[in-house]
This record gives sequence, C-alpha cells and structure tokens, in this order.
Amino acid sequence: MREITDYQRQIAQAVEQFIANNKEESLYAPVNYILSIGGKRTRPALLLMATDLFDGDSNEAINCALAVEVFHNFTLLHDDIMDHAPLRRGNVTVHERWGINEAILSGDVMMVQAVQLMMQCPDGVLRDVLEVFNVTAVEVCEGQQMDMDFEKRSDVSIAEYIKMIELKTSALLAGAMKIGALIGGATKVDAELIYEFGRNLGISFQIKDDILDVYGDQEKFGKQVGGDIIENKKTYLMLNALALAEGNIKESLVEWISKEKFEAATKVSAVKEIYNTLEVREHTEAVMNKYYESAISNLRAMSLSEEKKAPLFTLARQLFERED
Amino acid sequence: MREITDYQRQIAQAVEQFIANNKEESLYAPVNYILSIGGKRTRPALLLMATDLFDGDSNEAINCALAVEVFHNFTLLHDDIMDHAPLRRGNVTVHERWGINEAILSGDVMMVQAVQLMMQCPDGVLRDVLEVFNVTAVEVCEGQQMDMDFEKRSDVSIAEYIKMIELKTSALLAGAMKIGALIGGATKVDAELIYEFGRNLGISFQIKDDILDVYGDQEKFGKQVGGDIIENKKTYLMLNALALAEGNIKESLVEWISKEKFEAATKVSAVKEIYNTLEVREHTEAVMNKYYESAISNLRAMSLSEEKKAPLFTLARQLFERED
Repeated sequence: MREITDYQRQIAQAVEQFIANNKEESLYAPVNYILSIGGKRTRPALLLMATDLFDGDSNEAINCALAVEVFHNFTLLHDDIMDHAPLRRGNVTVHERWGINEAILSGDVMMVQAVQLMMQCPDGVLRDVLEVFNVTAVEVCEGQQMDMDFEKRSDVSIAEYIKMIELKTSALLAGAMKIGALIGGATKVDAELIYEFGRNLGISFQIKDDILDVYGDQEKFGKQVGGDIIENKKTYLMLNALALAEGNIKESLVEWISKEKFEAATKVSAVKEIYNTLEVREHTEAVMNKYYESAISNLRAMSLSEEKKAPLFTLARQLFERED
Repeated sequence: MREITDYQRQIAQAVEQFIANNKEESLYAPVNYILSIGGKRTRPALLLMATDLFDGDSNEAINCALAVEVFHNFTLLHDDIMDHAPLRRGNVTVHERWGINEAILSGDVMMVQAVQLMMQCPDGVLRDVLEVFNVTAVEVCEGQQMDMDFEKRSDVSIAEYIKMIELKTSALLAGAMKIGALIGGATKVDAELIYEFGRNLGISFQIKDDILDVYGDQEKFGKQVGGDIIENKKTYLMLNALALAEGNIKESLVEWISKEKFEAATKVSAVKEIYNTLEVREHTEAVMNKYYESAISNLRAMSLSEEKKAPLFTLARQLFERED
C-alpha cells in the first residue's frame, strides 16, 4: 500500500496532463486556471487508494480519480459565483477574473469533461461507476441548495445541518471511495462499506472543521480563527448553542447574531464564552466522535486483512487528529 | 412510420412524468418550470424517429429522448442568465423569477439528470450513446462561448459563424439523431450519415432563421421581424453584407451599426435596402440550399428503403419551407 502523498503526486501529474490537453481557448482558460491553483487532491487520492485496497490496478482508475477532481473544482467554481467569493485558495476567483458568464460556462464544460473522464473505466463497471457518480453529483447540488436555503432561515435544525454536510461534503468523498473500490473489484458489500466509511468520515471531518474554526490554533489553522462566528455561519456549534441556550444566555447570543456593528475580536470572545458556558465544544466533539467511530466500524466490517486496512485506519486517525 | 406530431406527444407525456417524479424542493422548482413552459420538443422527437427508422424499439429510446430535452433546457436556462434575457417562450426566465444563484444551481442539476436519463439505454450501446452525448454537450458549450466571443469582436468571418451555429445549434440535433439510430441498431455508416444529415439540416435551419428574421412575414413569424438588425446581431446576412459592401454602402452600413439612437423601423428598412442592393438574400439562400442539399445527399446514401426514408424527406422539406 502506498502513502497518501504518493497518490496525491500521481493525481497532480494527471491534472497537469489534462490541462496540457485542453485547447487554448477562452472556454478552457478558466478550467485550466482553477485546476492549477492547487488543492490537496484528497478525494481523487482516496479513490486510487480504494482501488489498490482491493488489489485493483490504479492505472485503470486514474481517469476516474481525475474526473472526481474536475467535478469537485466545477462545484467550487459555481459555488464561488453564488457566494460572491473574491478569493479561492488565495487566488482571485474565476468570476472575478473572467466575469460571471465565463464562470458559468466554463463550469458547465467541466461537468461534461468530468463525465467524459469518468467513462474511462473498464466496461464491466461502467454502468455502476457512472450511477454512483451521478447520484453523488445530484447530492452535491442538493447540499449546496440546502446551504443556500439555510442562509435565509432561522429555524435550521441540527438534523438538517448534518444532512446538508452529508450531501455537500461527504457524498463526494464517499462516492469517490466507492468508485475506486468498484474498479478494484470489491464485492457489493465491501463497496457499500467503504461508501459508509467515507460518508461517516466526511461528516466527522466537517464537524472537526467547525470546531477548528473556533478552537483551532491560529498558527496551524489556515483560515481566520473565529471567522464562522463573525459571519454568523450556521455551524454545528452555533446550531447546538442555539438549541441549548435559555434565558439571558439565549438573549445575549441572539443579540450578538443580530448586531450589525461590532468589533470582530469582541464578538468572537463573547460568543466563545457562551459556547463554553453551554459546553458546546464537548457536545460537538461527542457527535464528531460518534461519526468517527461509525467510520471505524465500517472499516472493521470490510472483508480485508488487517494489514490491508492499516493505511485507512491511519488516514482516518490523521483526519480526526488534524489541527488545520 | 409515425408522424412527427405523434413523437412530440410521446415526449410531452415523458416530460410530464419526469416533472411529477422530481422532488418538490427549491432546487427542482425551476427545473420543472422551464420544462413545463413548452418548446416544440423537436430534438427528442427526431431521436425517437431515428430509432424507429432503423426498426428499433422507441420505448428503449424514450429516456434518451427525454435526456436530450432536459439537456437542451439546461442550456437555455444558463444561456438566459448570460444573455440577461427577461423572457423565455413568453414566460419570465428562471433567473428573473428565482435569482441567478438558483438558476445556476438548478441548471447544474439538470445537466446531471440529463446524464442519468441518457444512461437508461440498452447496455450494448451505453458507451457509444454516452460518448456521442458528451461530445455534443462539449460542442454546445464551445458554440455558446464562440457566440459570446463574437459579441466583443468586429472581425468575425463567415466560416467562423458557420462553425458557431454548427456547434451551438446543429450538434445537438445531429447528436440526438445519431443516438436514436444507435439505439435502433443502425450500422456505424448509417449512424454517421444520420449525424451528417442532422448537422447539415441544422445549419440550413439556422440560416433560414436568419433570413426569416429579416424577410419573414410578420403575421407568421413568431418574433419581431427585423429584430436581429435592430440588435446588430452578427447573423449570416449581416456578415455577408459586411463582406460584400464597399465604398458608400460600407460606410452607410457601418454607420447604422454604430448608431446609438435611431428609430427601429428606419434602421430596419435602411439595412434591408443595403442587403437588397448587395443581393445578400440570394447569397444567403444559396448557402442555405447548399447545406439542405448536403442533408438530402446524406439521406439518399443511407442503407434504407425509399419508403423508410420518406418521412425524413418530408421533415427536411418542411423545415426548409417553413415560414415561422
């Protein structure tokens, strides 16, 4: 079994080759741009890892892995338009550089290119692979829709939040691993287990992200600690606090959320204080642990040797313990 | 062989069923809306017709036909955002009714749904059908990109214009017919011939559209006659006039194009006068005839009985002689 970084290198090469093959036309300039400004290539690396896990040939899976990366970047491109985001991975976003029309159309062609790449899998698994991919793609759209709807709502439940991150974040991680497993020749049961592993791990990963945004170490955390609090983002912690708070604490929390003018640092420490009083961190970590444990159970249930499974245990642990 | 209107009815039913199956969520409301506000369903009807032509079972092709219709409406939805269009088929556009973000995302999910529908074809042709569909989808994006690029350019050649309408309009017509033929069990040669038939017919159809916009009978033509002239649209006629005009006529034409304030009717009759002097209509009709004749040759070359081909000859003639 290879290291995750080794898979990431393999993907980086495939991405470079893909960019080199795209025509040098206005339609493809934004495609090549967003693919070239980085990203950790985690999803496609996990796809290749899943193929290897079941003794498949990762060369047969490389274009499907690339498809996942192209698809993921297509969603980022369109999401950035919807969020009016000025920056993506520290670089100016496509719609800021080329305009909204260009960003819409280049995103559209990326979606088609993703399907073209995904089709480059062995005939025997073509229908299964594409079905997983399409369901995943629909789910990602549904997750983004929920996320947009949440911004206009004040009654989002924790169950809805979990459903949203499952669709928007975990589905693609889970789908990528299942596709890799199918190409590797996994049984239906194992393919389903690795899907569940990815789904649970993805949810736990996103909840970890919410925790790090508040309790992370600014030195290690990439983004501004407290950013979610400043923007009133409906994270797991915020929804949990809103559900638990009563009386004065509730009033104070609602007041901070509705304040239009405030000093950022003051708001962050005030809301964090409320979180601490309500033991929001502990509650959130308990839920994160639950999803992590479920992922570990899925992994245990797979019909593979312990030796085979070892890198996935390591990976899960790394994601669980990460500080950035 | 059934009448084209009969196929159109079959598609209309399938569209209704598709709408009924979509979840009642914010993401799908715009999908159902754009699919329900009409359209002639020509492309999917031609797909079914092609399946029948080769003695295939049109029930095996109905979801692919629906896929073409869903894909076509996805492109209209995103094109309307890019064109800032207020109306589509006399109804308010999706981005006007729900906002740009909603229009982007609902369009995205339609593209995925189109792939899901297209996959509902027999296993034996799955890869071929999807390959045709993907190439077509990429071409439609490339055509839209060329169209957008043309707006900013003053040196568009006639060859580039033909390429643009081939990609933006004909590719989907041609692709739909080829997919229908593949499902019907056509030979590779016949599938290629029906593709070429659709491609040539589509180009001739679009040129006819340009002619009708200037020389159509207002009573019969759906849109405002002269609309392209008012908007300085780079149609075949306009590009042909720009290529042919010299001296005073050239000056006058360029002046009308650059005028910011003008009375619409005066501009239309002045530019039409220039077209008449340069015999632009005759030149344009000659080119339209050339593509029509090519389509007829493609049809003649197909390995089918004359009786089988008869409805396609009729269809081609109808499109060629239409006045709306």
